[in-house]
Amino acid sequence: MLRGRRAASVPQRADSRGLTGRVNLVVSFFRRRSSNVELPRVRARSRVGNQSVNRVSLGELTPEARSFLGRAAYVQLSIFTAVAHAVATAPHTRGKNALSRVAQLSLHKYEGLVAELIRLGHDPVSAMEPFESSTDRYQQIVLGKDWYECLVTSYVTAGLLDDFFVRLSGGLSDEENSRIFDLLSPDTASQFIVTELRSAIDANPRLASRLALWGRRLVGDTLLMARSALVVPEDTAPDETRLEPVFTDLIAAHTRRMDALGLTA
Amino acid sequence: MLRGRRAASVPQRADSRGLTGRVNLVVSFFRRRSSNVELPRVRARSRVGNQSVNRVSLGELTPEARSFLGRAAYVQLSIFTAVAHAVATAPHTRGKNALSRVAQLSLHKYEGLVAELIRLGHDPVSAMEPFESSTDRYQQIVLGKDWYECLVTSYVTAGLLDDFFVRLSGGLSDEENSRIFDLLSPDTASQFIVTELRSAIDANPRLASRLALWGRRLVGDTLLMARSALVVPEDTAPDETRLEPVFTDLIAAHTRRMDALGLTA
Repeated sequence: MLRGRRAASVPQRADSRGLTGRVNLVVSFFRRRSSNVELPRVRARSRVGNQSVNRVSLGELTPEARSFLGRAAYVQLSIFTAVAHAVATAPHTRGKNALSRVAQLSLHKYEGLVAELIRLGHDPVSAMEPFESSTDRYQQIVLGKDWYECLVTSYVTAGLLDDFFVRLSGGLSDEENSRIFDLLSPDTASQFIVTELRSAIDANPRLASRLALWGRRLVGDTLLMARSALVVPEDTAPDETRLEPVFTDLIAAHTRRMDALGLTA
Repeated sequence: MLRGRRAASVPQRADSRGLTGRVNLVVSFFRRRSSNVELPRVRARSRVGNQSVNRVSLGELTPEARSFLGRAAYVQLSIFTAVAHAVATAPHTRGKNALSRVAQLSLHKYEGLVAELIRLGHDPVSAMEPFESSTDRYQQIVLGKDWYECLVTSYVTAGLLDDFFVRLSGGLSDEENSRIFDLLSPDTASQFIVTELRSAIDANPRLASRLALWGRRLVGDTLLMARSALVVPEDTAPDETRLEPVFTDLIAAHTRRMDALGLTA
């Protein structure tokens, strides 16, 4: 049942626009960060999907629950502040009202993650603190300089990061995995964002190239953030190309989100 | 029952620190704005408290429900964005986590007000739009320039404005009055804000005078905002001194909030 639901959210194939090249670029970014790793957990068997044994599945790289939840919670709080910034800077009441519901859903996810930490006996604040400075730096980079960039950020980064943490939770206990799936799967990005951006792009086609570029920058920075959450042992670092399928799926879902805006990923 | 609950939240007496002078100052501010009024509603009898017949009770100055709810909702959204700004700029994870719950409660109030508009058959966005520019101007003025001022703003303005709209709802139908009371009465300002500010002021006594000044500015600007929500007929404008008791109660509650911080109101 859970597997079925999760499988439904996992893209079955990559798109056809030179994804492999982009994944390699992302993987090469990752390589530069490989000194910043945590201790691995040995897993007899992955619970995530039916990846080939030659590939690394995301669940094998999952940190222990406290670290997973602390990071996921702080990242969700960061997504919330980005959406709240979009509420504050919206040029019309319609936009403020629509985005307030996106902010509400993001806060709900944050509170759910904090509740999980408490349920497991951890102090939420100290579990989140190790991830504050890196997430804040990321947040400053991706905030966006106008209303449209803020909307793309709310849509793209929340989509990518929720996707990522749902997949990564495959390495937690089945019960925890199920809770995280239920909590993070609902799409934070409202239909409002897609409609608003499409109509703005239709009215001003030059916006399309600027926002497509912005989306590309976001995916790079966001996947680097995601990569830093993986527990990759330095001494036995997997061939980075074996990480590709993990990120190929995330990027394929991202590509569909950009398609919905009429933008090239 | 409702009356009992409301009465419990209404201060019974003013404080002893020259309040009358300050109320007169506020009332004189109001007089300068008296050209900007709405049409009055004639009410046979006030539902709010047991004011003397020589005094104007807030319920007699209540706009019709759509206007009341549209303004209260937009103001609540504005309170939310101020709290979310404090979440974003908090200097520590502890502060972000605590204020996220304040933001959540403010969003809950906003959504409740929007739900009331929908229940009465009104489009929430068009009901809020008339209040956008004046509220946004107010919001810019009261945002605060550092973490401590942001905290005082979240605490003082949310307290004053929720108080005000609960009292003003006395002029709506009993059912509406009861719903608004239940929705807006819970104090948005968390104990966290009081504890955080008290410990900062203890550690740096010079902060006290700056934040006391900031609180005074906030109360002036916020009561002017509140005054603009009243339906005061220009041709039969009540002697402004008759409005005093209305604002005396609000200011007394504000004074208790500042007392809780150890600051002079």
